[in-house]
Amino acid sequence: MIKAGIVGGTGYTGVELLRFLACHPEVCITAITSRSEAGIDVAELFSSLRSFIDLKFSDPAEARLDLCDVVFFATPNGIAMQQAEALIKAGVKVIDLAADFRIENIAEWEKWYGMPHACPELAAEAVYGLPEVNRDKIKRARLVANPGCYPTAVQLGFLPIIEAGFVDTDHLIADVKSGVSGAGRKAAVHTLHAEASDNFKAYGVPGHRHLPEITQGLSKIAGAQVGLTFVPHLVPMVRGIHATLYARLTEKKAVDLQELYEKRYANEPFVDVLPAGTHPETRSVRGSNICRIAVHRPQDSDTVVILSVTDNLVKGAAGQAVQNMNILFGYPETLGVSQIPLIP
Amino acid sequence: MIKAGIVGGTGYTGVELLRFLACHPEVCITAITSRSEAGIDVAELFSSLRSFIDLKFSDPAEARLDLCDVVFFATPNGIAMQQAEALIKAGVKVIDLAADFRIENIAEWEKWYGMPHACPELAAEAVYGLPEVNRDKIKRARLVANPGCYPTAVQLGFLPIIEAGFVDTDHLIADVKSGVSGAGRKAAVHTLHAEASDNFKAYGVPGHRHLPEITQGLSKIAGAQVGLTFVPHLVPMVRGIHATLYARLTEKKAVDLQELYEKRYANEPFVDVLPAGTHPETRSVRGSNICRIAVHRPQDSDTVVILSVTDNLVKGAAGQAVQNMNILFGYPETLGVSQIPLIP
Amino acid sequence: MIKAGIVGGTGYTGVELLRFLACHPEVCITAITSRSEAGIDVAELFSSLRSFIDLKFSDPAEARLDLCDVVFFATPNGIAMQQAEALIKAGVKVIDLAADFRIENIAEWEKWYGMPHACPELAAEAVYGLPEVNRDKIKRARLVANPGCYPTAVQLGFLPIIEAGFVDTDHLIADVKSGVSGAGRKAAVHTLHAEASDNFKAYGVPGHRHLPEITQGLSKIAGAQVGLTFVPHLVPMVRGIHATLYARLTEKKAVDLQELYEKRYANEPFVDVLPAGTHPETRSVRGSNICRIAVHRPQDSDTVVILSVTDNLVKGAAGQAVQNMNILFGYPETLGVSQIPLIP
Amino acid sequence: MIKAGIVGGTGYTGVELLRFLACHPEVCITAITSRSEAGIDVAELFSSLRSFIDLKFSDPAEARLDLCDVVFFATPNGIAMQQAEALIKAGVKVIDLAADFRIENIAEWEKWYGMPHACPELAAEAVYGLPEVNRDKIKRARLVANPGCYPTAVQLGFLPIIEAGFVDTDHLIADVKSGVSGAGRKAAVHTLHAEASDNFKAYGVPGHRHLPEITQGLSKIAGAQVGLTFVPHLVPMVRGIHATLYARLTEKKAVDLQELYEKRYANEPFVDVLPAGTHPETRSVRGSNICRIAVHRPQDSDTVVILSVTDNLVKGAAGQAVQNMNILFGYPETLGVSQIPLIP
Repeated sequence: MIKAGIVGGTGYTGVELLRFLACHPEVCITAITSRSEAGIDVAELFSSLRSFIDLKFSDPAEARLDLCDVVFFATPNGIAMQQAEALIKAGVKVIDLAADFRIENIAEWEKWYGMPHACPELAAEAVYGLPEVNRDKIKRARLVANPGCYPTAVQLGFLPIIEAGFVDTDHLIADVKSGVSGAGRKAAVHTLHAEASDNFKAYGVPGHRHLPEITQGLSKIAGAQVGLTFVPHLVPMVRGIHATLYARLTEKKAVDLQELYEKRYANEPFVDVLPAGTHPETRSVRGSNICRIAVHRPQDSDTVVILSVTDNLVKGAAGQAVQNMNILFGYPETLGVSQIPLIP
Repeated sequence: MIKAGIVGGTGYTGVELLRFLACHPEVCITAITSRSEAGIDVAELFSSLRSFIDLKFSDPAEARLDLCDVVFFATPNGIAMQQAEALIKAGVKVIDLAADFRIENIAEWEKWYGMPHACPELAAEAVYGLPEVNRDKIKRARLVANPGCYPTAVQLGFLPIIEAGFVDTDHLIADVKSGVSGAGRKAAVHTLHAEASDNFKAYGVPGHRHLPEITQGLSKIAGAQVGLTFVPHLVPMVRGIHATLYARLTEKKAVDLQELYEKRYANEPFVDVLPAGTHPETRSVRGSNICRIAVHRPQDSDTVVILSVTDNLVKGAAGQAVQNMNILFGYPETLGVSQIPLIP
Repeated sequence: MIKAGIVGGTGYTGVELLRFLACHPEVCITAITSRSEAGIDVAELFSSLRSFIDLKFSDPAEARLDLCDVVFFATPNGIAMQQAEALIKAGVKVIDLAADFRIENIAEWEKWYGMPHACPELAAEAVYGLPEVNRDKIKRARLVANPGCYPTAVQLGFLPIIEAGFVDTDHLIADVKSGVSGAGRKAAVHTLHAEASDNFKAYGVPGHRHLPEITQGLSKIAGAQVGLTFVPHLVPMVRGIHATLYARLTEKKAVDLQELYEKRYANEPFVDVLPAGTHPETRSVRGSNICRIAVHRPQDSDTVVILSVTDNLVKGAAGQAVQNMNILFGYPETLGVSQIPLIP
Repeated sequence: MIKAGIVGGTGYTGVELLRFLACHPEVCITAITSRSEAGIDVAELFSSLRSFIDLKFSDPAEARLDLCDVVFFATPNGIAMQQAEALIKAGVKVIDLAADFRIENIAEWEKWYGMPHACPELAAEAVYGLPEVNRDKIKRARLVANPGCYPTAVQLGFLPIIEAGFVDTDHLIADVKSGVSGAGRKAAVHTLHAEASDNFKAYGVPGHRHLPEITQGLSKIAGAQVGLTFVPHLVPMVRGIHATLYARLTEKKAVDLQELYEKRYANEPFVDVLPAGTHPETRSVRGSNICRIAVHRPQDSDTVVILSVTDNLVKGAAGQAVQNMNILFGYPETLGVSQIPLIP
């Protein structure tokens, strides 16, 4: 049994962490902090947790996070990089669900996130927490940079075909769609129900913060700098990411893409390769840590189409964080995160 | 470990039964039947179940349901009444999620359901499966009539105040709102997304099949025939029932309604009385077997307003069925049905 | 051709006023003010208006509203009461879409709106702009208090039966449901898509600001103080109000409710009484100024059920305001507000 | 004033045709046919039309469509090709909103639509009704093949850059998203609210009927056979299409794409090129005949991204049909189809 703390638990990744950790047989949640909600019952903010979580938000200044075995940062960008070092020195494992430690190139990080990085040394040490790529490194990590929601869906979709070296990596295209919960639980006009429902739009086409994260990950897989056009869209749904990925085959001989994907993910507990010719839907992973993938080659052209879906709050955030915690502490990887998706 | 069978598992109550039973530590699902889908993998129809359920739909004629310990009917009305008797004779416990055995007055049943009843004797024996009212009878039952979705939310909402004898039971009002999944997973125009979303309407005001079921239940509680105006509405959401209940106080002395409700449900694992002055929301029970209730007396008038929410597919159908199964077989009542609601 | 100004046009009632006035053959919009958006093209904020409205938001201090023939206040509560007097003195007709002039009892207004009233004399003069009740007074008004969205749907629903004196007005019940646009276009957590969609809840049961407005209106119709239980709910849709109204018949002789309603509204251009036995749906009035009503008496009990739907932004706000403007200036009442509802 | 008939008016394109034609100052609707609904008031099926349309569905056998000036086919595929010839011989102009006359290559049509073509000669004569490409031919046509919804959004998006010869037309990509109304108003499981809402998925990746239509149109523009990867998706909204288009620049010298698009569409009443750097949203054209387009070149790479939105039922169907009718009869192109989009 380990003691877990959560910093900044009033957002959607916070309530999801609580949902998973409350059921985890090896975890005891000892603290969840929030400056604004200190003293308030967690279940008062999130009525879904009534009778499941008997805990109050505590003031960050008073919470003894250094006594935890693991601390999750479910905070806005820029917080974890200020607090992680002290915790790590105290022997606490840290999992950051924000972006502070995802980008290795500090100048690049500072450009996209618009602030100086408070702790470049830790950024260098942090392990990017995509288990399907970095499982062994995660096992030995002190600090895990939990991947972003778009980057998880896109990287898992492209991974096998780029590893295999079959496509032109200078012109990858990721047309990605996200539910509105990806924007977080904060007051804003553009994500109001009356604005975002019954509507569809692209955003951030000139540049989105997840672009350098995805490019970094794909470049490592490719062993060379990749070129990526990344277009995110807002879908009038709550949860779910759907990545539609396009790549041009360079390998001229017959390639069995279906077999390639099935083999690559045969031992992955949370990646499900669908039968040939099918289309995953976001609700098929709603509330679960699964990524479902289908691979197509329409009209036998040289353009491959990969469809990859996740729940942005689970495999794209809190679920993957718990998966990483399981790896860090040697638990079975699916422990506490094997909930069945909710349909309908 | 008991063997469970499901008849007619291609609808929403079917997939929900599978979601709960697949996780239930004391249940092995041995058969799920469907005439139209026989031979098809369950997970092909419900992609959410891929890797969780490894079972094919079997032809009703070939499934050995008589070898089960319990059989759930997740069928349209009129099926269970034809097959339950043989199963019961074979020693199988039967839980009917349809309406065949809910109404004691056979003539009334035949009027509302438009067909002759195939098995009136069993209807007389069946126990109405609302544990908060009939727990002891359920324990000894051979056949459980699982309550309808509206009737569950309405009866649990009215129960304490009618038991206490505080209100005029001749003029009860139940203004009830349901998500679209209540209409089932069958092709129809009026429940298309393009028809039902961004829209709200009442329906069935002249008469709805759940009216006699609710009236029967409330009358038993009241010990006399009640008068009820019941108005169902269709909400553009997938899951959830919200009952707004109105009753006029007859008890003139000061009544602590909050205390009344809290006491009545103090030991009920699936009924949660909210703090005074609050409003339950349907998503606070999404995917869970909980009914949350708040009781109000606006402007200190003599009209009491009770708000009661459930997930229509869980406490209003499959979850309550598993709860009833647990009672029938002596398992802890929450076993396998204690999932945390999904927010957001 | 008259000159119209709009104060505070950045909300949903603002964009709706623009939609109607831009098509109105007798209106020229000369100014729309917004402190925060001054200098910005209206069509930049509301992309729907590109190519239809060629106007910039102007600073309230610089707009010459006194040169308008009519000024609409589409502002938060508390603004119009500070500016209306000067405009009226300048000969401008004023239509306030907020609540400043809706309640005659100033103490009551101050209690519900939580501020001192800046202009009680004008509140005494203002005409409550429900044409179906006050058409003649509106014709001669200088200041029109445009009714709230809930009050419009509830009053039109109850009007004929209360006028006829057929019901117990001490115990009226209005169970009312509104789309999320009723909360306005302002950043807030509880109306985020990720919070409000796929969810349903009541709110304000202990007390809602529209209660005194409705009670005042119904009491005038009844000729005596009425008792009303008013329960608003939030529906996961953008537009639309559905009022489900309950009243107990006191008139024992046979009453033809259908005929009563049809006669009362026979000459009303914007009230449509549906055939007996039917149920109006909110989308049937989407984008239009129509109120559709059906009247039921289920199971021949003495409880009457009236269903009344409007578009909260149109008949419940901007459309009714233009209807009032037409009355004020002697135009045909439907001029510029006869758009066909949008289905699907 | 011309006489218009509608064949098969019980679907969404039917109700939209009625919405536009009912307001059109030069049109009198003389007949609307439906085998299943003959004798029923149009307004009984579409409550939005109550008080706007006073017409009954008539039996196709009895309607005197030959007396019309123009007949719209809002029927499933395969109907118009059987009836158009007789009408045209009677001097009636025919506008087919289905796909019968969209594909010139009859063998190709028969392959994708799975039936023999009943009238290849007419298919050869028919004019493809995309006014921005074929305006002059439409003026002289007897039979207009109204474009599909996806094809309209995709062709208008690609048109300027392909005409200019700036891109590699062998590897075009159209990642397109549609609201659920695109599937029509017919009973089906996959478009139920409980299935399609809060969900997102691709479909038809191996092949979709709009692929040959788009390819034919783009090839004509390019003057050579183009290669297109076309991936449609289903969005949980009612109306709207969003096409995200990708093309690789071949022109190495500096190209001002913004200017190219603005110039090409400068005189088009229904195509709106947005300012550089912006993103159109589907609701900005809801209920209107406008197509809004933005063009991007992210990170100055050689991949161009074009965003194109329409209302699938208007510019993608009924609105464009009325636009074509206006062209056929010499009316101003916007007559009766200049409604302002509905936001929110």
